[in-house]
Amino acid sequence: MRFGAPSADGGRFAAAWSDLAGVGRDHLRGGYSRHVFDDADMLLRQWFTEQAERRGLLVENDRNGNVWAWWGEPGTDAVVTGSHLDSVPGGGAFDGPLGVVSALLAVDELRLRGVTPAKPLALACFAEEEGGRFGLPCMGSRLLTGAVDADQVRRLHDGDGTSVADAARRVGLDPTTLGPDPARLASIGAFVELHVEQGRLLQSADASAVVGIGSEILAHGRWRITVKGQGNHAGTTRPADRRDPMIPAAAAVFAARRAITEHDGAVATIGRITPIPGGTNVIASAVQLWLDVRHESAAVTAEIVDSVVGAVRDEALAEGCTVMVQRESMVDRVAFDTVLGLQLSELLAAPVIPTGAGHDAGVFSAHVPTAMLFVRNPSGVSHAPDEYADTADCLAGVDALADVLENLVR
Amino acid sequence: MRFGAPSADGGRFAAAWSDLAGVGRDHLRGGYSRHVFDDADMLLRQWFTEQAERRGLLVENDRNGNVWAWWGEPGTDAVVTGSHLDSVPGGGAFDGPLGVVSALLAVDELRLRGVTPAKPLALACFAEEEGGRFGLPCMGSRLLTGAVDADQVRRLHDGDGTSVADAARRVGLDPTTLGPDPARLASIGAFVELHVEQGRLLQSADASAVVGIGSEILAHGRWRITVKGQGNHAGTTRPADRRDPMIPAAAAVFAARRAITEHDGAVATIGRITPIPGGTNVIASAVQLWLDVRHESAAVTAEIVDSVVGAVRDEALAEGCTVMVQRESMVDRVAFDTVLGLQLSELLAAPVIPTGAGHDAGVFSAHVPTAMLFVRNPSGVSHAPDEYADTADCLAGVDALADVLENLVR
Repeated sequence: MRFGAPSADGGRFAAAWSDLAGVGRDHLRGGYSRHVFDDADMLLRQWFTEQAERRGLLVENDRNGNVWAWWGEPGTDAVVTGSHLDSVPGGGAFDGPLGVVSALLAVDELRLRGVTPAKPLALACFAEEEGGRFGLPCMGSRLLTGAVDADQVRRLHDGDGTSVADAARRVGLDPTTLGPDPARLASIGAFVELHVEQGRLLQSADASAVVGIGSEILAHGRWRITVKGQGNHAGTTRPADRRDPMIPAAAAVFAARRAITEHDGAVATIGRITPIPGGTNVIASAVQLWLDVRHESAAVTAEIVDSVVGAVRDEALAEGCTVMVQRESMVDRVAFDTVLGLQLSELLAAPVIPTGAGHDAGVFSAHVPTAMLFVRNPSGVSHAPDEYADTADCLAGVDALADVLENLVR
Repeated sequence: MRFGAPSADGGRFAAAWSDLAGVGRDHLRGGYSRHVFDDADMLLRQWFTEQAERRGLLVENDRNGNVWAWWGEPGTDAVVTGSHLDSVPGGGAFDGPLGVVSALLAVDELRLRGVTPAKPLALACFAEEEGGRFGLPCMGSRLLTGAVDADQVRRLHDGDGTSVADAARRVGLDPTTLGPDPARLASIGAFVELHVEQGRLLQSADASAVVGIGSEILAHGRWRITVKGQGNHAGTTRPADRRDPMIPAAAAVFAARRAITEHDGAVATIGRITPIPGGTNVIASAVQLWLDVRHESAAVTAEIVDSVVGAVRDEALAEGCTVMVQRESMVDRVAFDTVLGLQLSELLAAPVIPTGAGHDAGVFSAHVPTAMLFVRNPSGVSHAPDEYADTADCLAGVDALADVLENLVR
């Protein structure tokens, strides 16, 4: 790990960051809401395309909504770096864009160093990494790698009832061509994703490291729980006549909290809940809520889901409600490539840390040697407007990424 | 109460009902979402205007978004009947429109009977009775009667951030003229609102009465509770670092349910809850929830609110969250006019029943002799797509309303 003044250009970083600052602001929630194929996302893609073309890179849109920018002829054994441009609803500025901006600045840094890549180098922006619009995180990378069925994806709907197929068509992407892209996958020799840290392991590490290397992603998944009762008037329905689905839904929140106190290293969250119809003077007819669970063991993850669903079912039985559970995604623990990880930790002398967050790197890891770099996040806050990394740390991240790429493209 | 075949015209009722059936359907929630000044509401107003003009009535829009249709010259000691055209989100077909359609058909019935009113008769449609868009129920009647401050109303916002002032302006209503309309109020001699019953008191009455007369509206109110925590990443934030506002919010749901088991005749409901930002993989930074409480005693209502808020505060303290409570509306118990009620119950030989639901009639009751007629609802379901009244019962309701109006306009 280099210390001292970073060599990456602070002015260029500031310029890129200010280009992005106004795009997709969420005035209701705070922070940013940038979702796949919406206006903000399309503006960011346009920005990335212009930035890449200004650097002489060849930009192409693949069949799955991902954007690629090539230094040198596209070809085999390519070194790929990048991240995503979309955000969670009301998310921070760094989760995703930091990896994309750092990739562009790392190209500048390599050129300043006089590096001529012996292998093709590609920068990539992957579609719907957060699952903020259609509920399926890492949609672009999962489609590309065949980790998800394209027919199922085409039929997913956003909150307004627009399908993936329709949303893709509206931005000029043919939805019939969504699906595995084995030729592209086979061309990748290594993938490195730089990301803001979403926790405080680096901050609390010895000497407070600025950059860390990812070791693994915890097993994690999302479950949609639907509780159905009987919609009715809030003012006139007697207690005995109530079949209120909010009661079992509230039980889920407490059960999730109980579960993480009982299982060390586990997290379980309900951050999204939608009563239907959602009127102040209406007993809901149904409630949908989403349970997010993560642990290094897939078995413990399943156990936590079972205990939350069990608590909901118990309460539903007493309330005369029914419960449906649908797994929206489930990913086993991902260990990043050991050889590549070792190579990077020797090169950067940086600490190795795990993460509870899913990433496109986790999807690619099943197919190609993959690594992640994390940039220190002093508060640890992520997926919220307060998400933050110091500019000096971001520049150190660009340097580290340039070091890694220089090493890999030889 | 007349029994046997109703004299009101079933064909005319069916025609009116089918005119309304397609307007404002909510394909996501089921049922209808018709909110003040939205496209559906404006279509319904246009329909009402046409229907009234076809009957030779003089239609006028007042300064507060309410529509009036006059039989005879507008003037003092007027007899007013009507209801509202808006719905709760995903509401039923009857709550509101039944009173408006019945008013129109009662005019037909009076003409068939050869009645010439000695007093002015007006049909009225009141704006935003449900508070489904701006959160303030009976907005139109409260503005007209001066029960709410016009400046406060102008500043209310809907879920998309549009203010009442902007929404009014868009439909050609000057928002600066919102507010008390004492001349109009002084011209009203009596107000009668017909409404579908929102409960099963008539169904369970002796001989299952078809029409009932309202005695009182329970004290009721709405409180908005805002819990603030720290938005963060659902996958990476350790249990000890969590300040999750969903935990205190869930406590509110259970506390409301506990309260209604502890206070006889009380209802308390949380049917609307909005985590911000509301992402699956995000610990919410804040949660807004709405508490609806009703009881015949305002003191007990306040006690229930205190106990729910207390439960939320206890949980918030443990979770490191803060709590803000805002009363959106509070209405004391309303007893309808005793003399008018007695007159109607003698005329119709119908049972007298209370209701837990708020109505524009409750607002007018403080100023003019006011009565309500309820039409039997076999399941008791209301504010939901299953809300239902049999057509024969609706026609009996028209007859009863015509009897009442005939009696009052003499």
